[in-house]
Amino acid sequence: MQILDRINSPSDVKKLSEQEMNALAQDIRDGIMKRVNTIGGHLGPDLGIAEATIALHYVFDSPKDKIVFDVSHQVYPHKMLTGRKHGFLNPESYSQISGYSNPAESEHDHFVIGHTSTSVSLATGMAKARDVKGENYNVIALIGDGSLSGGEAYEGFNNAAELGTNIIIIVNDNEMSIAPNHGGLYKNLEELRRTNGTAQNNVFKAIGFEYFYVEEGNNIKSLIETFEKVKNINHPVVVHIHTLKGKGYKPAEDDKESYHWQLPGFLEQKDGCAEGESYNSITKDFLLNKKEQKEPVVAITAATPGVFGFTPDFRDKMGANYTDVGIAEEHAIAYASGLAKNGAKPVLALMSSFVQRTYDQMSQDLALNNSPATVLIYWGGISGADMTHLCTFDIPLISNIPNIVYLAPTNKEEYLAMLEWAYNQTEHPVFIRVPATPLVSTGIKDTTDYSILNKFKVINKGEKVAIIAAGNFFTLGQQVKEEIKNKFNINATLINPCYLTGVDEELLEGLKKSHNLVITLEDGEIDGGFGEKITRFYGDSDMKVLNYGARKEFTDRVSLDELYNRYHLKKELIAEDIQKILG
Amino acid sequence: MQILDRINSPSDVKKLSEQEMNALAQDIRDGIMKRVNTIGGHLGPDLGIAEATIALHYVFDSPKDKIVFDVSHQVYPHKMLTGRKHGFLNPESYSQISGYSNPAESEHDHFVIGHTSTSVSLATGMAKARDVKGENYNVIALIGDGSLSGGEAYEGFNNAAELGTNIIIIVNDNEMSIAPNHGGLYKNLEELRRTNGTAQNNVFKAIGFEYFYVEEGNNIKSLIETFEKVKNINHPVVVHIHTLKGKGYKPAEDDKESYHWQLPGFLEQKDGCAEGESYNSITKDFLLNKKEQKEPVVAITAATPGVFGFTPDFRDKMGANYTDVGIAEEHAIAYASGLAKNGAKPVLALMSSFVQRTYDQMSQDLALNNSPATVLIYWGGISGADMTHLCTFDIPLISNIPNIVYLAPTNKEEYLAMLEWAYNQTEHPVFIRVPATPLVSTGIKDTTDYSILNKFKVINKGEKVAIIAAGNFFTLGQQVKEEIKNKFNINATLINPCYLTGVDEELLEGLKKSHNLVITLEDGEIDGGFGEKITRFYGDSDMKVLNYGARKEFTDRVSLDELYNRYHLKKELIAEDIQKILG
Repeated sequence: MQILDRINSPSDVKKLSEQEMNALAQDIRDGIMKRVNTIGGHLGPDLGIAEATIALHYVFDSPKDKIVFDVSHQVYPHKMLTGRKHGFLNPESYSQISGYSNPAESEHDHFVIGHTSTSVSLATGMAKARDVKGENYNVIALIGDGSLSGGEAYEGFNNAAELGTNIIIIVNDNEMSIAPNHGGLYKNLEELRRTNGTAQNNVFKAIGFEYFYVEEGNNIKSLIETFEKVKNINHPVVVHIHTLKGKGYKPAEDDKESYHWQLPGFLEQKDGCAEGESYNSITKDFLLNKKEQKEPVVAITAATPGVFGFTPDFRDKMGANYTDVGIAEEHAIAYASGLAKNGAKPVLALMSSFVQRTYDQMSQDLALNNSPATVLIYWGGISGADMTHLCTFDIPLISNIPNIVYLAPTNKEEYLAMLEWAYNQTEHPVFIRVPATPLVSTGIKDTTDYSILNKFKVINKGEKVAIIAAGNFFTLGQQVKEEIKNKFNINATLINPCYLTGVDEELLEGLKKSHNLVITLEDGEIDGGFGEKITRFYGDSDMKVLNYGARKEFTDRVSLDELYNRYHLKKELIAEDIQKILG
Repeated sequence: MQILDRINSPSDVKKLSEQEMNALAQDIRDGIMKRVNTIGGHLGPDLGIAEATIALHYVFDSPKDKIVFDVSHQVYPHKMLTGRKHGFLNPESYSQISGYSNPAESEHDHFVIGHTSTSVSLATGMAKARDVKGENYNVIALIGDGSLSGGEAYEGFNNAAELGTNIIIIVNDNEMSIAPNHGGLYKNLEELRRTNGTAQNNVFKAIGFEYFYVEEGNNIKSLIETFEKVKNINHPVVVHIHTLKGKGYKPAEDDKESYHWQLPGFLEQKDGCAEGESYNSITKDFLLNKKEQKEPVVAITAATPGVFGFTPDFRDKMGANYTDVGIAEEHAIAYASGLAKNGAKPVLALMSSFVQRTYDQMSQDLALNNSPATVLIYWGGISGADMTHLCTFDIPLISNIPNIVYLAPTNKEEYLAMLEWAYNQTEHPVFIRVPATPLVSTGIKDTTDYSILNKFKVINKGEKVAIIAAGNFFTLGQQVKEEIKNKFNINATLINPCYLTGVDEELLEGLKKSHNLVITLEDGEIDGGFGEKITRFYGDSDMKVLNYGARKEFTDRVSLDELYNRYHLKKELIAEDIQKILG
């Protein structure tokens, strides 16, 4: 760390010789390895962008010149050069520094960013603000090749091209998204790399950018030479740099997908543990089984196959029955609608945080057409995640769209029955919130007919208090039931609603006879969510209703325990609330 | 109509000579003019696509070959050739046939589509379904040049290019979106037109398509020749056709923007009426005033400037302080965030139906960053619109995103005060639901401090019943108040909540003392909306609450009167409901 020790701000980078900058790149990589091995995080993208980040800070004058990172998980080297190296070198400081761009940490960061494909639009806005205010500096978007597949990036490029003034878009092409890239654009990037940037087909030139190519994207000298050329340029320009994902750590260079992100301790334990049965594994088995039966199944992901355990082996087995659309959730939904309408059986897997990247397609392309696609939502629920990757908003987002059926299974058998029904039916777009819990199995096949929409399941028929506990929080519902049995000797009714998109009016009506209080539990934002539909149903009655879930807020790496306390998502706290109501 | 009279299905088109087809194009144009002059609708795009539609049906075999239209408002000629000419020739049949693609009308339509940029993704899904099922036919997307600016279109192109089998994308380039196009892509289209399709820069080739150009896009012979070449092709292909928007009607050829869409009776009355004061006019005055004061204001639209009265004259006056981003709402939001974060003053105008095209950008780019942009939502409310253009979903969509302030003004003075506050403050992204009503003026300047969030206004302090009437429905609230005064002698409390994103807990708590019933009125979907937040607040109390608004459903050209009856949005119906509760 002999060089990094001397770097406290970008101005220190400007004093270095080329040799020292190369040593600095190694120091940066050591810092990345240390942090990721201790607390986990993004590895390959950051190892590959060390030299380019050094060159950027050597040539440009941050924060006067503005740099926007995309995906901002490639921001580690930038953080180390802008006063935040303690977040990589001192384990006790790791939690102070996030893994994403964050203006609260530094004047060198301009946005909180975690989702992809945003930088060019944000930078175009910054550049336009500069222009209308009559200011003068460089605005730079650093965008990974994976991020290019998102429609927001394209919309940004299209308008940046019209700006007529300085905007510098650096395309960091490491030949990979998380997994291999998909789409026609990537053939063009490959052609450009192969021809040292001289190919006639050039998507960037075609839409109006001056274009520069740097083959040696990990060569500081080459990068500086090119960055010097475009500094203070008076029109939109793309600098396409070819970098090596995982550079400097052989296993990450060799297996770019696995080392995109790593868990703590990856340096010590690389055996890998055998995968037991999980919601991922039973989903994969379901899909492979359909494929083996020669069904027109099409499994779809949007650039995050690893999240669902869609390994290269699984993808190979699915063959033409698998599509990775790239970071293109809008297309994924419309594509699924087209597949379903033409008689195929699409099963689209999306993370809760990323289903946010499509709404109009869910509403217009899918729901309005009642296309019978199956969409699996993963990781939905309250978590201690970064504020950019919260998974608490999918219920309000999805469940208020007409025609969609959104199901919340509570165990393996229920999940499989719902999946089978969703797959076979031809009436509705069906979303399933895959439990974000370890696998729970009842051992009893679920024979429910899910075509009878909004039919809740009464698990225990009691009195006074009814607990409607959805999906992940069904277990919490069981705990609350036990707690108030033990504490207040109340035999509460316990209900598994199964559906997040409607209410069982007959059941709810029936509860009025022998219950005074209904509580709803959902693992997500309360505002606009499932529980409020229950409360509205009882609005004109004497029934009291308490809704439990997450507050409408962005939380940032707050522990689950703290959040559960804040939101009263613990059996003791809920029991106290119940006591207050019942007196 | 001598030729059209003989056309009852595409097979009849195949029997025609070239001369007859040309006559048919004229018949089609006459039908378009007749319908639009009687019930209003899209004019220019349909006049321009007559020949191409005839050529399509001459060459391809619909419905075996699948054609997806985008924007589907250019579907009129297709409808006339596929058994629905009565919807254009017989005024009594007009209401049976919608202005958009609709499978319920014909097997030649495959999707309900009204929003743009969807066709390539939908068609890619259809083509993939064909392939996994081992079928064999052509899948065709007909996409307007305006629709190309949406990210969903790009995502679709990117993946269509990878399909490896038949997909034919016809780019109908009439040199216009509704208004002139914006973005680097359009420079490339211009270059391609200028070079008869031979320019080296070719965005379609760059991302992997074989490319054909038809300069004479209104010449049936040229079109047929090219369509014959690509029929049954075994790989993705783009056919770029250059058509004349408004063809055959001189005023529409000369003023393409005004004649994109027309109101009934446009043939008779072309004087134009002087624009009186309206929410549009006062918004424009506000923006021009900021510009004149040399403020860093940037007014932004996404290809629908006419909706807001942003005429060419207004746009000229705003100059560099105006940006039309094209049909690119995602970019528009992120661009506004970038502008705001860098010290400019963005004011983005969007239609309620189209704000649906961005959610993640509202959440991540804007709200997470607390960027102080102002977003004006127009036309929000229940309407008799086509199911593709409903404006009932914006409250659930926007109001459950943390950090956003969504305001619902009820009159001119309130709107201007909110707009001024939103513009000047630096803390929040502020959305304003511009009243979708004729202008109401109190004549009294509104001096409310809107920085005190979620502070409701008590307009009348009464007892027993409190009416919380938001935005457009404030007038209905006043009517209900009068009605129950007259009928039941109840002096109801009337509240204008102003904010759709939170509740005034102190005020609501206070109502408990002297009120038994609260009713909420909002001009939009109830599920996930504003009223449910009020109901949840009272969940643990004895207060009864009734929420009024739209049901969670897609309605299709249902009259406002019928919807108001269905949803009980009339003073008499609400008074009856109140009577039932109060006994």
